Amino acid sequence: MFDRIALIGLGLIGSSLAHASKRGKLAKHIAGHAKSAATRQAALTIGFADSVHATVAEAVKEADLVILCVPVGACGAVAAQMAAHLKPGAIVTDVGSVKAAVLRDVGAHLPASVHFIPGHPIAGTEQSGPESGFAELFDARWCILTPPVGANADAVEKLRAFWQAVGSKVEIMTADHHDLVLAITSHLPHLIAFNIVGTAAHLEEVTDSEVIKYSAGGFRDFTRIAASDPVMWRDVFLNNREAVLEMLGRFSEDLSVLQRAIRWGDGEQLEAMFARAREIRRGIIAAGQDTAAPDFGRRK
Amino acid sequence: MFDRIALIGLGLIGSSLAHASKRGKLAKHIAGHAKSAATRQAALTIGFADSVHATVAEAVKEADLVILCVPVGACGAVAAQMAAHLKPGAIVTDVGSVKAAVLRDVGAHLPASVHFIPGHPIAGTEQSGPESGFAELFDARWCILTPPVGANADAVEKLRAFWQAVGSKVEIMTADHHDLVLAITSHLPHLIAFNIVGTAAHLEEVTDSEVIKYSAGGFRDFTRIAASDPVMWRDVFLNNREAVLEMLGRFSEDLSVLQRAIRWGDGEQLEAMFARAREIRRGIIAAGQDTAAPDFGRRK
Repeated sequence: MFDRIALIGLGLIGSSLAHASKRGKLAKHIAGHAKSAATRQAALTIGFADSVHATVAEAVKEADLVILCVPVGACGAVAAQMAAHLKPGAIVTDVGSVKAAVLRDVGAHLPASVHFIPGHPIAGTEQSGPESGFAELFDARWCILTPPVGANADAVEKLRAFWQAVGSKVEIMTADHHDLVLAITSHLPHLIAFNIVGTAAHLEEVTDSEVIKYSAGGFRDFTRIAASDPVMWRDVFLNNREAVLEMLGRFSEDLSVLQRAIRWGDGEQLEAMFARAREIRRGIIAAGQDTAAPDFGRRK
Repeated sequence: MFDRIALIGLGLIGSSLAHASKRGKLAKHIAGHAKSAATRQAALTIGFADSVHATVAEAVKEADLVILCVPVGACGAVAAQMAAHLKPGAIVTDVGSVKAAVLRDVGAHLPASVHFIPGHPIAGTEQSGPESGFAELFDARWCILTPPVGANADAVEKLRAFWQAVGSKVEIMTADHHDLVLAITSHLPHLIAFNIVGTAAHLEEVTDSEVIKYSAGGFRDFTRIAASDPVMWRDVFLNNREAVLEMLGRFSEDLSVLQRAIRWGDGEQLEAMFARAREIRRGIIAAGQDTAAPDFGRRK
């Protein structure tokens, strides 16, 4: 499908894309770049990259598909480093969790001779680093592409075909709508998870070891997503500030209603709110984005 | 270990206790009571109960261990129904997620001739009903017993041995401390999960089907615990009001700090808070209450 794919960043997503590209025989050559020499060496040892490069400029040379797999906040600087070295006609994309900021930061640097089409696979685990990747990560998950107005239709279709070939289903929407949808389905959940883990850690009356010991009561479900990469998530919140604050405001309003129902002992309202939440869960299972199995459908 | 165990309530916990008791050959006879005739029939069909009874009074007759497996709010009424029919010397316990309220509500009805020792297995799934039980539910999970001051030591030891025989590790603490610990490790996480699912359902700009479609970004982790039984959880919040409101207050304070860090673009503080949350997660894995595996350690 491509002669040469360049992956800038070789963490969970970058390494998984390499594994999935090899599985599907999607590239003759996979070139990788990571800032850390240890990560570059790991990519060669594990074998998911055919070559590794100490600079972004070298890595992107002759590539017809360049994928930025770095935290959202680093995308602008990486784009500046690659701009003069990109092959004319190359497709440049990314995997960041925020799209309007990437469109702005990366778009500002790239020449008109390449096709920049931002993307975001809705897939991941709480693990990070080059050892955490696996070929199946994107199977049956959604990938959202947010081509800017006037994007080359052939390039969009080629990128769609690539994501389908690594196992994903593809949806296209505007960057702004993406950022709003993800603010509620991903960014706010992570923020809440980080927050409750912090609250639990600061209690005087309950020890940390008690929190850990009895975490199977619900708390551990939150800690899993709170274990996600801190730098990646810092950048998400800095770059999708408005949508996250909007969702957080609504969340806090709703929480005040629940809080009052508890304070007033309004059992009827509590039960009705909880029953509605259960219905949403059933919708997710019916849509195939999770399973009813106690393992959460994570083991395939 | 017992001649006759009576299970009052045959949902997830009741049926799992029956399966686990049969696995460990802990009772010559397991008697069950459920309000619904369909549930009683299911217990016989599945085979985890040796006899089922339409009234609490019949079910507890001659039992030397009686376990209340009904929502916390129903415990007082059930205790009133059984009080006159309990065998002298019987151990009466429960599995409710709140302990001070149960101690008060149940204790008020029981005769001095029986040993009442409240308990709470920290185990469960988001499923409910007699079909959802399985023998392994309590394996390697904690069960907390909260014997009142002056409880019979032999009875406490016998109940401890029972929980160990169904697979649990046992800890003993006061009812008040239990309620505080569980408020943070279980009750607040459930409240937050119910709330965020509600927030997501009420957005105008993002459709329900988008929320469901892109839930793999983090949201689905919350929906699992938000799918838990609404009546059970209503009763938890009505009966552990003070501790839950206290934890909720702390959570909201912490959330305001995070909110301000996002509004001010304070990346350093965000990263530090997120990194700390990751450490807690590592503690949970190290303590064996979860695993690093992407399946959450739920499949054994």
